Amino acid sequence: MEYSLTSLNELTEQFASLPGIGRKSAQRLAFYMLSAPEEKARNFAAALVEARQKIGLCPECQSFSEGGLCPVCKDVTRDESVICVVCSPADVLSIERTHEFRGKYHVLHGCISPLDSVGPDDIKVRELIARLGSGKVKEVILATDPTVDGDVTATYISRLVAPLGVTATRLAYGVPMGGRLEYADEFTLSRALDGRTKL
Amino acid sequence: MEYSLTSLNELTEQFASLPGIGRKSAQRLAFYMLSAPEEKARNFAAALVEARQKIGLCPECQSFSEGGLCPVCKDVTRDESVICVVCSPADVLSIERTHEFRGKYHVLHGCISPLDSVGPDDIKVRELIARLGSGKVKEVILATDPTVDGDVTATYISRLVAPLGVTATRLAYGVPMGGRLEYADEFTLSRALDGRTKL
Repeated sequence: MEYSLTSLNELTEQFASLPGIGRKSAQRLAFYMLSAPEEKARNFAAALVEARQKIGLCPECQSFSEGGLCPVCKDVTRDESVICVVCSPADVLSIERTHEFRGKYHVLHGCISPLDSVGPDDIKVRELIARLGSGKVKEVILATDPTVDGDVTATYISRLVAPLGVTATRLAYGVPMGGRLEYADEFTLSRALDGRTKL
Repeated sequence: MEYSLTSLNELTEQFASLPGIGRKSAQRLAFYMLSAPEEKARNFAAALVEARQKIGLCPECQSFSEGGLCPVCKDVTRDESVICVVCSPADVLSIERTHEFRGKYHVLHGCISPLDSVGPDDIKVRELIARLGSGKVKEVILATDPTVDGDVTATYISRLVAPLGVTATRLAYGVPMGGRLEYADEFTLSRALDGRTKL
């Protein structure tokens, strides 16, 4: 006989449906939730519902925002002439963590992917082009993922923005800092050679 | 400026508070939840609350149960003369998966741990002893974790049940199946040698 409780199975399924969580971890998390104080499960559930209700997309950059403009778009001290284009809202956080970039963002919510039949109309390209209409933007930094799909997306957007008199730039490809050269894959190394700079 | 949304941070915190989920994964899961259809978050929240509301402890074996006896205790075909004692409800599932054991279970909800000041009264030892009173139980299999705390718990319970005329047995220690001997640690190997059996 299977030891089976409907609501426990349902909770395990929910955990297992999350990215990067396997069946074994999902079961462990479900059991943890049952053993933890009941308040814990209630707070978790409330956080899920609340985040989903409160957070929408920033009407300007399409990143996540709690009603109205996101913190970056609201910030008047940021440089409006540079827009950094990324695939997902998580990428905004990664770039913010460098404390290097003082411009604005645009979140595409995906990459153009011919294999997965994701076209330019399925991601927020149109919203980006609309932002370039004001003439304030001088540069678009294409910080899409360093993958085939990311490259396709960057190339596509660079062609769209060229006639608008906006410079399109791409993040540098190369060997990651702190790594060891012997562990770098050949594609990364070949890009690093292509992009070598004069000392 | 920190890119910070209160409800997103709260959701990330909730994920990060789960066992085995680090800050980076928690952030990824929170972002996933915001990008997934809203229904997904609502269903997840409902599953959490429902599991916590519906699932309690089986009055007999103390494992998880949806009201009343758990599926194993309800099953009249199972052998009432053998009780397998485990530390957590997840262990019941692990043993059920072997399809080898046809007796009943008892879940202690923890191990005796002098270092963490967990004594016999903090886990469900009293409930186990009460079940042995009927005289139906002939054997108690101590399937506590193969750790110092698990050993302490097993030894403690074996001493308690001896005067009741109940045989106490312990799971065999040894090298795990499918592993390679060179990777076995010295404690496991030394236990495997001690417990060697005649062919």
